[in-house]
Amino acid sequence: MDAVEVDEIARAAGTAAAALEGLGRHNRATVLDGVADALEDARAAIVATADRETSLGDGRLSQELTRTCFQLRLFGDVLREGSYLEATIDLPAATPMGPRPDLRRMLVPLGPVAVFGASNFPLAFSVPGGDTASALAAGCPVVVKAHPAHPETSRLCWSTMQDAVVAHGLPVGTLGLVEGIRAGAALVGHPAITAVGFTGSAAGGRALQDIAAARQRPIPFYGELGSVNPLVVTPGAASQRAEEIAQGFVGSMTVGTGQFCTKPGLLFLPSGADGERLRAALADAVRLAPIGVMLTSAIHDAFDGEVARRRSDRRLTILGEASDDRAPRTGAAIVFDVAASDLDDDLLEESFGPTALVVGYTDLDQLVTTLGRLGGQLTATVHAAAGETNLIARLHRVLRGRAGRLVFDGYPTGVAVSWAMHHGGPHPATTSVAHTSVGTASIRRWLRPISYQNAPTDVLPPELRDENPTGVPQRVNGTVQPIGPAHGFTGR
Amino acid sequence: MDAVEVDEIARAAGTAAAALEGLGRHNRATVLDGVADALEDARAAIVATADRETSLGDGRLSQELTRTCFQLRLFGDVLREGSYLEATIDLPAATPMGPRPDLRRMLVPLGPVAVFGASNFPLAFSVPGGDTASALAAGCPVVVKAHPAHPETSRLCWSTMQDAVVAHGLPVGTLGLVEGIRAGAALVGHPAITAVGFTGSAAGGRALQDIAAARQRPIPFYGELGSVNPLVVTPGAASQRAEEIAQGFVGSMTVGTGQFCTKPGLLFLPSGADGERLRAALADAVRLAPIGVMLTSAIHDAFDGEVARRRSDRRLTILGEASDDRAPRTGAAIVFDVAASDLDDDLLEESFGPTALVVGYTDLDQLVTTLGRLGGQLTATVHAAAGETNLIARLHRVLRGRAGRLVFDGYPTGVAVSWAMHHGGPHPATTSVAHTSVGTASIRRWLRPISYQNAPTDVLPPELRDENPTGVPQRVNGTVQPIGPAHGFTGR
Repeated sequence: MDAVEVDEIARAAGTAAAALEGLGRHNRATVLDGVADALEDARAAIVATADRETSLGDGRLSQELTRTCFQLRLFGDVLREGSYLEATIDLPAATPMGPRPDLRRMLVPLGPVAVFGASNFPLAFSVPGGDTASALAAGCPVVVKAHPAHPETSRLCWSTMQDAVVAHGLPVGTLGLVEGIRAGAALVGHPAITAVGFTGSAAGGRALQDIAAARQRPIPFYGELGSVNPLVVTPGAASQRAEEIAQGFVGSMTVGTGQFCTKPGLLFLPSGADGERLRAALADAVRLAPIGVMLTSAIHDAFDGEVARRRSDRRLTILGEASDDRAPRTGAAIVFDVAASDLDDDLLEESFGPTALVVGYTDLDQLVTTLGRLGGQLTATVHAAAGETNLIARLHRVLRGRAGRLVFDGYPTGVAVSWAMHHGGPHPATTSVAHTSVGTASIRRWLRPISYQNAPTDVLPPELRDENPTGVPQRVNGTVQPIGPAHGFTGR
Repeated sequence: MDAVEVDEIARAAGTAAAALEGLGRHNRATVLDGVADALEDARAAIVATADRETSLGDGRLSQELTRTCFQLRLFGDVLREGSYLEATIDLPAATPMGPRPDLRRMLVPLGPVAVFGASNFPLAFSVPGGDTASALAAGCPVVVKAHPAHPETSRLCWSTMQDAVVAHGLPVGTLGLVEGIRAGAALVGHPAITAVGFTGSAAGGRALQDIAAARQRPIPFYGELGSVNPLVVTPGAASQRAEEIAQGFVGSMTVGTGQFCTKPGLLFLPSGADGERLRAALADAVRLAPIGVMLTSAIHDAFDGEVARRRSDRRLTILGEASDDRAPRTGAAIVFDVAASDLDDDLLEESFGPTALVVGYTDLDQLVTTLGRLGGQLTATVHAAAGETNLIARLHRVLRGRAGRLVFDGYPTGVAVSWAMHHGGPHPATTSVAHTSVGTASIRRWLRPISYQNAPTDVLPPELRDENPTGVPQRVNGTVQPIGPAHGFTGR
């Protein structure tokens, strides 16, 4: 796809922006519902195409489509409720600094957004997915850069979604698709694009972020790059439920053939008899772990190379591995073991695929010190026993500053799409520590505040008018108003 | 100040973080009130010192101190109300994707923040000011880089505020002060610093932003760089109130000797008799404008140089000027005139000081096209007549995407500190289009989300507990709960 085509598609997105915003929240919610319906109507074809390209399996892909449709409808709820706009009204008043004018603030769409599809969730972080759903919900046209791991799936989803959008009277430019690395780079540099959503490798993200920052007018770049997702087992938890944790850990580490951004890649285990029991159970579970087909040859080769490097690393021992049947692109689970005192920074990097590193700690001070060396993470998990209150508090203190989501006695894979989800974290997990890419709050990435001072009523968006015709929560003079049957207040 | 001292101060801020956050919202509000009280108790000394260094005058400086104290107390209200934390609880539930765990999300402080004081508001955008107040409110220790234009004022304010903070039992590291360009650069690069607030020149901001981005762990940089603040007078407004607008404009352009970030620097006037009448009134008003002393010799020299360049620019004519009495550092108001057809990009840059450029437009298409060439602005202002509904809508469409605050029939200087204020804008007005540096929402810059999954109650911050002991608005399963006398709900 050449630069002329990218330019046309980005311009079309720019042209579509006014129509998409102009629909208003309630109508945009209806469009999102319509897109979800269209994807569900095409479920059989989409799942079959995606399975052919990704080998992820019908069951998983069908569930992924369900998730994507659930997410589109959830953003419909967000739009209908409306508090995401932060509609705020300060009526004219006297202040110690003199009279204050009428001020009204809310969030408005940024404009067209570039979304980079990921390889590992062809239906939930790709053409359809969190970035696209939240940006459309915000009122921003989207141009997706298709991931080369599933081009046909990308085109099918795109045409399905574009048809649905057009059927609701929106311009075709509301949802665009570009393909190819150069097209992606041109898109990020295009003047019509106002923000970027990216899920993928640190290197790819860095290159695109540099383009976004070097533009004549720099734009926000929301990148989710990588995370090792440490999981800590306390002595009490190892004593109480070694076998259960071993099973759960291997399940979480191997789901999707280890190709989840929240895959737990570091497992901290105590020394001693309980730790050894857990190690033995882990070795058994890994041996029996299903062999999966990886997403692409490149991802498979990178996994193979990393496993080979770790096999030859003298600091590491192999704790357990599944026997590889050497079919094309298969990834067999393997878990290495290292002493905390041997843990160097190179072992703290994300390793994509069904592999993890067990880190043995000899005492709690060593555990906490080692955790303190970790970089930013999407998740951090603690398995503890009920009585270990002080230890849990200590682990909480060291992990809270390093992770976006803290999981207790559970596993980090399986990111719920909900109001309270945060999927993000300090660098390098994401490039913007203040934002999430999953959950309702992800809409905030595509919005900017604007204030109106003494504006005539007909200039104001409906959400900022006294009569509140669309029924949005309004904060008036600092207090959020109840939305009554009259949908509004009379303030001036 | 050398690197060792900066390191000590930044580390002390890091050490103070837990205590400041641990106070909790309500106690932190009390501390902010105490800091405001302390500044007011020292009002006479602070104003006298600031006047000696800045020549801004007792009246203005006293009002600025009032503003700063008002702001500290307003953030106290924000803390007591608590909705800025976005406390959100999703109780365990069945979903189409399977069971959802207990998820609880809120915002937590980032950690120590570096604040760069500005020259033009020694008491409201400097050691005390919006960045410091919002960061302390968020629970983040602050290290201020003092502006060299008012070192004694900075030290006096710092010691006053630090004493107040320490009197409330907080560590001295809660508020630090560094001086010197190299100290400022070292601060932005220091591992303990987690975010930067900056108000100043585009060049200075860019250099610091590059340091923030090049760190091993990049941190958010919130910079307010520059804005020309266009003000448009429609034909109807020119016809109805030429003299009034001329007076108002010159007042806004010359307040603080033109050294406000919201100073209107471009004035769009219609051609024809009404436009000429407004020009004549403007020339009269400029001639009578008070001569002020500028903040520093460097700022004065830059202003002088820019005026000299404009005097020799053949595209420009002088519409009016005040006679300069050539006392040291004085800035005399001067307004130039240019045809819209002659307006090149170099004339669209911010020009600090009491000067503005009148841009004459011959028709509305030319006006709208010219406005479409503007970069991002903190403000844009429209003066119109009541009947010009279509024109107002057209101007709104072109200006809304280019400015953070839209002012109608008023003036952009005088930024209210309130809930509905937005002080920010697309690049280059600010480096982060999604955030404000004035008003209650400015606290959002120093916070990051975190989610707890199945966390034991004693790990959860009080704001995320079922019993809601601190009385914060909680969104539960998507719906914000009323805070009743029981301050809570029982959900699980």
